[in-house]
Amino acid sequence: MVEWRMDQFLIGRSTAEMKSCFNNLSIEPRLPLIATNRPVREMGSFNGPEEIRLSLLEEAAKSGADWIDLEHDINVEELARFRQAGAKILLSWHSPDCTPTGNVLRAKLEKMLKTGAEALKIATLAQSGEDNLRVLELIPLARKEFDIELIAFCMGPAGKWSRPASLFLGSPWTYAQFEGQSATAPGQLTVSEMRALVRSFGHD
Amino acid sequence: MVEWRMDQFLIGRSTAEMKSCFNNLSIEPRLPLIATNRPVREMGSFNGPEEIRLSLLEEAAKSGADWIDLEHDINVEELARFRQAGAKILLSWHSPDCTPTGNVLRAKLEKMLKTGAEALKIATLAQSGEDNLRVLELIPLARKEFDIELIAFCMGPAGKWSRPASLFLGSPWTYAQFEGQSATAPGQLTVSEMRALVRSFGHD
Repeated sequence: MVEWRMDQFLIGRSTAEMKSCFNNLSIEPRLPLIATNRPVREMGSFNGPEEIRLSLLEEAAKSGADWIDLEHDINVEELARFRQAGAKILLSWHSPDCTPTGNVLRAKLEKMLKTGAEALKIATLAQSGEDNLRVLELIPLARKEFDIELIAFCMGPAGKWSRPASLFLGSPWTYAQFEGQSATAPGQLTVSEMRALVRSFGHD
Repeated sequence: MVEWRMDQFLIGRSTAEMKSCFNNLSIEPRLPLIATNRPVREMGSFNGPEEIRLSLLEEAAKSGADWIDLEHDINVEELARFRQAGAKILLSWHSPDCTPTGNVLRAKLEKMLKTGAEALKIATLAQSGEDNLRVLELIPLARKEFDIELIAFCMGPAGKWSRPASLFLGSPWTYAQFEGQSATAPGQLTVSEMRALVRSFGHD
């Protein structure tokens, strides 16, 4: 699948250019698509008005995007417009400065669950090896206790290994950058690195 | 560093042949060496008398082996002969059928600590992704709570990713097999696979 980082697309491009791309989302066959329009406050680069940000996402949903990535602090009533457009909701939370304690992480997960999103994403900065363990253990917990799919891994250099490991704990997908393009988060591996890792770790 | 699996060396070779190799341990410079003579009851292939097994390890220690790998159930009084020969003790425990609960693992760790070994090794079969997390979290715990170096990872296909990950949690080393030679445990990666993984996961 592919993530369209709309906020990064808009660096040096106009919303008019973006709108001319929406038609491409109806081309079949294509890979499943996550539309993400990350605001500055959540490690993204979209710095326009919130309503513009959401309306671009809504247009992506109406154009056929399979998933819409929305931030943890969104007003739950806002979700309906994306659902009506046929998209599934990925509710995401980023902690760019640290990895909170297990109790804080679990409380955050439970709060995010209440939105009824189809999948959740938790990404925190790893400052130690242990930070990865605390985040990774949320994945089987989310599946067993709450029956929800969770993408969870650590960002930053110390979190690199958690990105492939998350798949072996039940994460439905993980993030990797295209060769030669900029990473969308610190510690991100390239697609070919990730493929080699998954091959190495794959079951015999 | 290199592990000499003496029990595997003896498959199709005599103890006389082994003894003619001991002199090689005094060649300098050489890589640090762990001498391991794993008995059948602990996933190894040495099936002779216990006293012969230990006396071969003692001879390896006297010949210059840096580490002697001894099993968790060894009589503590036996350790002195290896120490007197100048070797450090790696006390190891393998659980080939399952990964016990966190409480059982921790109790095992605390019992192994009492021997005064310089390092400990715990390897269990992973039957799920979570099994890896339970074993890996012992590494920082051993260092922080008990100030001891612990090599801990999971065996089997589902444990592959824990082998490089253990290094990023503070394990002093991990095990990999030479290309073209048989693995000494299920799920073992090759040296070149391991090197590539460590490079991918390395800090920027």
